[in-house]
Amino acid sequence: MQTADENQTAKANLVSALKAFLREEQVTTNQTILELHSKDESYHTPSLPDIVVFPMTADEVSGIMKLAQQYQVPVVPFGVGSSLEGHAIPYEHGITVDFTLMNKVLEVREEDFLVKVQPGVTRSQLNKELKKYGLFFPVDPGADATLGGMAATNASGTTSVKYGVMRDQVLDLEVVLADGEMIHTGSMAAKSSSGYHLNGLFVGSEGTLGCFTELTLKVYGIPEFTMAGRAIFKTVDDAVGAVVGILQAGIPIARVELVDEESIHQVNLFSETSYKVQPTLFLEFHGNEAGLQQDVNFMKDIVADFNCDGIEFETDNAARNQLWEARHNLAYAFVHGNPGKKLMVTDVCVPISELAGAVNHARQGLQTLGLTGGLTGHVGDGNFHALLMLDLSNQEEIKKAEQFNEWIVMYALERGGTCTGEHGVGIGKQKYQEKEHGKALLVMEKIKAALDPNCILNPNKIVKTKGQ
Amino acid sequence: MQTADENQTAKANLVSALKAFLREEQVTTNQTILELHSKDESYHTPSLPDIVVFPMTADEVSGIMKLAQQYQVPVVPFGVGSSLEGHAIPYEHGITVDFTLMNKVLEVREEDFLVKVQPGVTRSQLNKELKKYGLFFPVDPGADATLGGMAATNASGTTSVKYGVMRDQVLDLEVVLADGEMIHTGSMAAKSSSGYHLNGLFVGSEGTLGCFTELTLKVYGIPEFTMAGRAIFKTVDDAVGAVVGILQAGIPIARVELVDEESIHQVNLFSETSYKVQPTLFLEFHGNEAGLQQDVNFMKDIVADFNCDGIEFETDNAARNQLWEARHNLAYAFVHGNPGKKLMVTDVCVPISELAGAVNHARQGLQTLGLTGGLTGHVGDGNFHALLMLDLSNQEEIKKAEQFNEWIVMYALERGGTCTGEHGVGIGKQKYQEKEHGKALLVMEKIKAALDPNCILNPNKIVKTKGQ
Repeated sequence: MQTADENQTAKANLVSALKAFLREEQVTTNQTILELHSKDESYHTPSLPDIVVFPMTADEVSGIMKLAQQYQVPVVPFGVGSSLEGHAIPYEHGITVDFTLMNKVLEVREEDFLVKVQPGVTRSQLNKELKKYGLFFPVDPGADATLGGMAATNASGTTSVKYGVMRDQVLDLEVVLADGEMIHTGSMAAKSSSGYHLNGLFVGSEGTLGCFTELTLKVYGIPEFTMAGRAIFKTVDDAVGAVVGILQAGIPIARVELVDEESIHQVNLFSETSYKVQPTLFLEFHGNEAGLQQDVNFMKDIVADFNCDGIEFETDNAARNQLWEARHNLAYAFVHGNPGKKLMVTDVCVPISELAGAVNHARQGLQTLGLTGGLTGHVGDGNFHALLMLDLSNQEEIKKAEQFNEWIVMYALERGGTCTGEHGVGIGKQKYQEKEHGKALLVMEKIKAALDPNCILNPNKIVKTKGQ
Repeated sequence: MQTADENQTAKANLVSALKAFLREEQVTTNQTILELHSKDESYHTPSLPDIVVFPMTADEVSGIMKLAQQYQVPVVPFGVGSSLEGHAIPYEHGITVDFTLMNKVLEVREEDFLVKVQPGVTRSQLNKELKKYGLFFPVDPGADATLGGMAATNASGTTSVKYGVMRDQVLDLEVVLADGEMIHTGSMAAKSSSGYHLNGLFVGSEGTLGCFTELTLKVYGIPEFTMAGRAIFKTVDDAVGAVVGILQAGIPIARVELVDEESIHQVNLFSETSYKVQPTLFLEFHGNEAGLQQDVNFMKDIVADFNCDGIEFETDNAARNQLWEARHNLAYAFVHGNPGKKLMVTDVCVPISELAGAVNHARQGLQTLGLTGGLTGHVGDGNFHALLMLDLSNQEEIKKAEQFNEWIVMYALERGGTCTGEHGVGIGKQKYQEKEHGKALLVMEKIKAALDPNCILNPNKIVKTKGQ
């Protein structure tokens, strides 16, 4: 054990070593900057890093990692801090690596439908660049997260029912490992059966196996024609049943979001819309005009079988944008409607046949516990969220909210689902890892130990570090 | 070192132990059965296992693995032996685990678009069962492989441009690990951000990390309408250019296969067709009728820009089947046309912008080396094969063929491609692993060592085993 004085000296030496290696202004212990890197967008308790560094190249990240090894200090990668489970909160302190300065779109290979980006590029920044080529990047988690962060948590969102999740888009990562070595996890080939699938392993590893310094991602042609619509139902069961019917009919949906009454109410308040306060599906279809017209006609027959109270479509760009903005603003609507409170979002994903039951069970949980919250879901994937606004000074409320989260998670796990569909484990879902993965968690621990034996990479996230 | 006598005694003891644990008829050292498990469909040199076992349950597989650990004997899983790179050839001998008796479709959850199968189920067997539900499983590597084997090699084939590869279909695997423990790598949720992505790691691990005893796979609704066609071009460049144009236009292709002149010639001989001997695209589209008509009209404009010499479409089931049968029979056409010879199939995948160059370079390689072979490709993915028939008694021919393989692989790797798009590493692509993966190969070796420290699982496949 080091004394406090020895700790201070070691830290000062590390800061000097970092400043000698990087430029002075890339290394800071400024209190305000430390505080900015102590939290994310969730209710999880903040914790300060000792030092924040702003690398500009992969070589710099490698050098930082080697110093961290030398000083045996944790390293936590940081994007824009939009995560919801405390992934980037440095509970063991140490160095936070902020990727803000590594924010270049390096290459657009339009014939190959791929781009190379640095980890600090945000998805809106990428889409702005891609638009020039008639291309787009589909993964849309709501927040304007960095692509490095989205890869680290395997983010997804509204479009994964058609385009897949973040992991499906990653062709290659340049990764700086715990020992400072740099590897590539894939190639520019659209598919490969060569070696173990390191792409898949590193995506979703939440900074516990390495820091991403470059990403090669799939991109897509902007669809010729897009239709968006809203369908209103009497019950959540009807809305979910309609989605299953649409999927079984083979109608390719690009987005399908369930928004419950409470959430519609918040949307109306925030976005000044006057949507009917009923369980609603927000839908989007991508394709050609003739095909979509045929699909939509077929779909109208299907939703009618599920007591649909009304369905409206928009093909006009402005109207479509307004509709999706309303959906996107849902979390902000809750935040806006509850000043001073912090957001907790649950995130289970269940087999779609279990979704209506799970949503009803969640609603019942809110009522039983006397909590207020909205329910919304990426219905095509069986993933849904409860949005709760918490008063962090009210311990009883927090306890109830955590009870509610457990209520939802246990229901999902017992039905073959997962405790997190898209937000990741971080600190919030760690206690469910053993229940979800059983002995597979030992395999994860072995992988972590093999690749980061001194456990300096985002310690105690995803898997608990033995002996720490 | 054990003497030969000690070896024989140890083997006899292991056979007795296996027979005591399983039923007598599930364990064999019969020479004919051993020979059936000594080879695959490729030119790779056969090698006999010591023992072949036929488990019926995961518990039996676990027991076999525990005995293998006790006796320190290799374990090699075996499906139908349709692999092309020697994956299942037991060069270190030991126990081959044949999954023939684990061939049940366990559950079809139609609302959830998933099935649970045992590893010995073949893809045609699964599709026959799924048809009753209006569903199908898209991955189609040509051979009627087992789903366990397809997952072990991350197989793909003609439909991956639309539906993805084997890895994209696997939601969960039940795996027996090296120590006999059983884990699940995923869940029934359509997506998850919980823990390390073990699904992706185990898919494509070629029996080196565990034996699969159950697979949960995504399935799809049979498309409402299907069109198939052939488009004929003057050059490979034009054919590939047309595909890029079609993809960039956002037209969703379900299959697009390039077949070169030599291959068309073999198809005509074998399938008694009279297709024009020119570079040809075999195409398929899935969707609704109105949408496909619009897509096809658009596509006709695009291919015209690439000097298309003719395009014909079939919507009739029988005509479509004839067309795809001709494509599917391509490998058999070569085998049939060259009695007594064995098949070598190259398998690189390159960024699509490099595909025309790679195919031309391969053709040039064949000419330079004086070899005869057909070229065919899953053009939408940038994956192509050269099919060569080898006289295994002709050492010079084998040497030339291996030179040719290297010629193709090096070209692909230098352009950001992979040495194997879909066949896997096995024994044939091991020498290219370091060139392709660089230091990432050390990460793979660490994972192998962490999960199979005694290296009993299909030793010396994918990664070389240290100290063996």
